[in-house]
Amino acid sequence: MKLSNEELARFEREGYLFFPNHFRPEEIEALNSEVPSLYAQHRPENVREKGSDAVRTNFAAHLYSEPFARLARHPRMVEPVVQLFGEPVYMHQFKINGKMAFDGDVWQWHQDYGTWKADDDMPEARAMNVAIFLDEVNEFNGPLMFIPGSHKLGVLDAEHDTSTTSYPLWTINHDTIARLVERGGIVAPKGPAGSMILFHACLVHASSSNLSPWNRVSVYLSLCAVSNHIRRFKRPEYIAHRDFTPIECLPDDCLLKAYPVALPWKNGTPQQALRAEVTA
Amino acid sequence: MKLSNEELARFEREGYLFFPNHFRPEEIEALNSEVPSLYAQHRPENVREKGSDAVRTNFAAHLYSEPFARLARHPRMVEPVVQLFGEPVYMHQFKINGKMAFDGDVWQWHQDYGTWKADDDMPEARAMNVAIFLDEVNEFNGPLMFIPGSHKLGVLDAEHDTSTTSYPLWTINHDTIARLVERGGIVAPKGPAGSMILFHACLVHASSSNLSPWNRVSVYLSLCAVSNHIRRFKRPEYIAHRDFTPIECLPDDCLLKAYPVALPWKNGTPQQALRAEVTA
Repeated sequence: MKLSNEELARFEREGYLFFPNHFRPEEIEALNSEVPSLYAQHRPENVREKGSDAVRTNFAAHLYSEPFARLARHPRMVEPVVQLFGEPVYMHQFKINGKMAFDGDVWQWHQDYGTWKADDDMPEARAMNVAIFLDEVNEFNGPLMFIPGSHKLGVLDAEHDTSTTSYPLWTINHDTIARLVERGGIVAPKGPAGSMILFHACLVHASSSNLSPWNRVSVYLSLCAVSNHIRRFKRPEYIAHRDFTPIECLPDDCLLKAYPVALPWKNGTPQQALRAEVTA
Repeated sequence: MKLSNEELARFEREGYLFFPNHFRPEEIEALNSEVPSLYAQHRPENVREKGSDAVRTNFAAHLYSEPFARLARHPRMVEPVVQLFGEPVYMHQFKINGKMAFDGDVWQWHQDYGTWKADDDMPEARAMNVAIFLDEVNEFNGPLMFIPGSHKLGVLDAEHDTSTTSYPLWTINHDTIARLVERGGIVAPKGPAGSMILFHACLVHASSSNLSPWNRVSVYLSLCAVSNHIRRFKRPEYIAHRDFTPIECLPDDCLLKAYPVALPWKNGTPQQALRAEVTA
């Protein structure tokens, strides 16, 4: 998996790349069949929606679920990111976002790097977001919305929104969004389960609520250049990882064959990983 | 303005008809220029969004705003409804729904006739919803979503949702919605300002939040067959009207010429119209 010059130029210009049908149905099924049992667990890695039992986001499944541990090492996902950064990457954040049928709530406009800088002291925006669709994404189940080109402005002023949803987020004010949209518009890549998006850590994005009867579960992985690892351990480790070991890829068929993977959190989250404000 | 046999058959089958560009830009401008002053008024007819000053819905503007009083008598809107019911109609409800940029909140899945029957004792579903777009409606600013064919099932069981948003609504449970969508799918008519939708009083509909920087103001009129007038005056008159006089249309250019119209609530809402639980 190698990005073409045209793709590299488009990423530079628009801040994202969309790969419909990047993973095959049987590869996605191997992941999907694990989600209900992950979401059913009552562990701190599951953040639920306000006033509902539906899971908004699950953290760090690659440390306690085999199929997701393999996905975290998949060459079709890791190699283009290594190519873009020109150096090895480690897993900074690993989420399975629910956006469940009927209950999936909004994510207000934000940049991920805003949080990584403010909370985690990540030196530069050299971490890539990867979204992998575990369900079809359509116009009705709350697709990711991007403002193309908005990654070029670096880190925008943001306010800490702790009230709108169940998950605190550094969100960007309305005037700024209106200006960015006037210039770049809004796009919402839609496609079948197995599609993948790469998007820049400074690309401004949001997603609407999901009132439809269709779940919209996606995996969001954030792969950080190893030299750019975070300097502050303010957030619990299951949210912002502290293991900067370069990802070593498994073979391309790793979602279909049971290659051995380490599952260090299989029997529960280590006490250390639950603590915030640890000195780096 | 007369519906064709093909349109009548489509309405029967799907429960709605969409007319893009039904009103011209200069006609819509005559309405749009009135909205800010209407929304700025602090009168009971303005219902605001939860935790925000943005207007969610404004009621009964046709009784105190000249352009909207003319819209309420527009032949391009009234005549197809009279044709469908085969008898004169009166104005049962008149709303200007905000769905404002950034603040516009969801409307959960519901049928309007459910409320009209339960609260207003309207004998049959012989009242038509008309939506007129005052702004462009696109995939990002919370378009109306319909489940085609869902009007054929009559009144569905509903629960009174008084907590999700600032406006109480009889909403339909998730299992029923899932079943209906499996059969009919979801559609969301999108188009420029000036577009019009006619939809059946039993058609199940919803709309998502508006996170975009684009307002999505629409007028929603509910025209009831005169013989089918409501029997119970449980809700305030500015929400469910009690004047069953048949609408008399103005000429087709009535949004561009200042034809005289009565504005009985121009100087405020009458005390009587604010009261609920009046005996019919």
